[in-house]
Amino acid sequence: MSGGATSDRVRPPTVRDVLAAAARLAGVVRRTPLLDDPRTDRDLGGRLLLKPECLQYSGSFKFRGAYNALAVLRPRAVVAWSSGNHAQGVALAAARLGIPATIVMPADAPAIKRRNTEALGARLVLYDRARESREEIGLALARELGATVIRPYDEPLVIAGQGTVGVEIARDLLARHMLADRVVVPCGGGGLSAGIATALATLLPAAEVWIAEPAGFDDTRRSLAAGRRLRNPSGGRTLCDALMAPEPGEITFPLNRRLLTGGVAVTDAEVEAAMRWAFDRFKLVVEPGGAVALAAILAGRIPLEGRTVVAVLSGGNVDAGLFARVLARDGG
Amino acid sequence: MSGGATSDRVRPPTVRDVLAAAARLAGVVRRTPLLDDPRTDRDLGGRLLLKPECLQYSGSFKFRGAYNALAVLRPRAVVAWSSGNHAQGVALAAARLGIPATIVMPADAPAIKRRNTEALGARLVLYDRARESREEIGLALARELGATVIRPYDEPLVIAGQGTVGVEIARDLLARHMLADRVVVPCGGGGLSAGIATALATLLPAAEVWIAEPAGFDDTRRSLAAGRRLRNPSGGRTLCDALMAPEPGEITFPLNRRLLTGGVAVTDAEVEAAMRWAFDRFKLVVEPGGAVALAAILAGRIPLEGRTVVAVLSGGNVDAGLFARVLARDGG
Repeated sequence: MSGGATSDRVRPPTVRDVLAAAARLAGVVRRTPLLDDPRTDRDLGGRLLLKPECLQYSGSFKFRGAYNALAVLRPRAVVAWSSGNHAQGVALAAARLGIPATIVMPADAPAIKRRNTEALGARLVLYDRARESREEIGLALARELGATVIRPYDEPLVIAGQGTVGVEIARDLLARHMLADRVVVPCGGGGLSAGIATALATLLPAAEVWIAEPAGFDDTRRSLAAGRRLRNPSGGRTLCDALMAPEPGEITFPLNRRLLTGGVAVTDAEVEAAMRWAFDRFKLVVEPGGAVALAAILAGRIPLEGRTVVAVLSGGNVDAGLFARVLARDGG
Repeated sequence: MSGGATSDRVRPPTVRDVLAAAARLAGVVRRTPLLDDPRTDRDLGGRLLLKPECLQYSGSFKFRGAYNALAVLRPRAVVAWSSGNHAQGVALAAARLGIPATIVMPADAPAIKRRNTEALGARLVLYDRARESREEIGLALARELGATVIRPYDEPLVIAGQGTVGVEIARDLLARHMLADRVVVPCGGGGLSAGIATALATLLPAAEVWIAEPAGFDDTRRSLAAGRRLRNPSGGRTLCDALMAPEPGEITFPLNRRLLTGGVAVTDAEVEAAMRWAFDRFKLVVEPGGAVALAAILAGRIPLEGRTVVAVLSGGNVDAGLFARVLARDGG
């Protein structure tokens, strides 16, 4: 790879990179809507809008960043590591572009994510989340195959692709002649929030961008408060398998630190309540990690009253058994 | 009510009435998307598009017809009877227009439909589906209250409102530079199919319109074959609480007879498989009655191979407990 391309890949993305990604993804990604529910607004005394990326191809926003990176780089083969959503995003993008894909995934990832990644034609390599390094396995595989690695969040082209969610939010608000006070984004490694915040700092500068994380995996929230990258304590547990990154990204964190207003953490119980709310009021299937922003609002951790708030529902890849148990816990 | 208005209400709607309804509903109803899934298409060897009216306000297409009728008639009060989806549609439309609503609903309707109808501010009157006539109860209430009755399907303004689903299908296909070979529509009293077929006969005349019904409640399928209205045998059971109308409508049947190509019946097991498919592939919550058209396609009763077929998902108001049981039966 040329030096120019390499330096492009570590330069943080700008709004122009996000807009270029949006042009590249037009007609390729599903244009997800912005959903409101007047009854929810009446109950909560504000205006809530949902951006349901659970409806995106591959079941999460990850397809955006993966496609953007592969469409620009056009590698002869691709290797990625992922707890499951980036895996499916890369597998689908690679299939669309005719690029062979190998995915390194934890053996305890949800069955739906493993099954779908294979169904999309990718080769799957499983590892033990507690004992092995997915990065080492992935880098060794890439060398062996002569493949390019697409990192799940520390990759400017991926961040720019995820930022297209922000471009659509800005466009759809404008089409309704509306502004938003806050946009709340689920956060694992921080690629989605960094991309959205990069877009909205220019396209919707009046909106604060917040992140939501699972309790025990609120490394970005704590890092934002401390002004430096802090790791999650080891051994934590959460229902949110998609948001278990060990620490903020090297490229994502400086962007998030500069552009985000703050972060909040939510409990598993709050996440489950948000999944049931999305089921009942919006007829949407949202996975635990995809529901943390909605959970933060419904639990009052990010107040809605008197405000217009957008919550990104980042994914919907949840096993039927777990979803059924979450529904049943409400006794519905 | 004047004689003119009355005769308007028994004249079958035309495509102009459907387009007038579409103009009335613009900015009021949720503009639901047309969803595809390339993986499903590869699996089935055709092109499947879903029209997810489960995402519609009130959780089903019924809001369209109810709002259209109330916006034209502007009654001082409204009475409706319904197994639940028309109830919620009328309750929401009446609340938006500031009209008091009374809804007659079977005591065994899903809890979610009763709860939501009341939450929308309507007064609920329950009756025994096996022993009482909802029509008698409703007409008596309307006389007592000086209210206008909005029938669930035998009402031209309601049929025209439901037909706006067809207008959106035609527009969204055109936007993709596509035609469709078939459009498959869930059928209870026949209002949705009559409205859609009225729209598409002019807007997308190359498309055949088919209905899907639950086995044992396939009165419209049998009536289409016989050329006259036949009742369902009494005592039948189905998971599809939304599609238990006893016979084709007086106004809907002549329209359906003239405009539909045919109908198919699906089993409860096929309906459950379609609900799981919508969950897994599309992250959508679809109620049993809302899934019959998709079920007909997935079960091969309406072949997809080599064709482009649109399936309407007509509603998503399903109790959490039932949805959890349907998911669990697959062992997911």
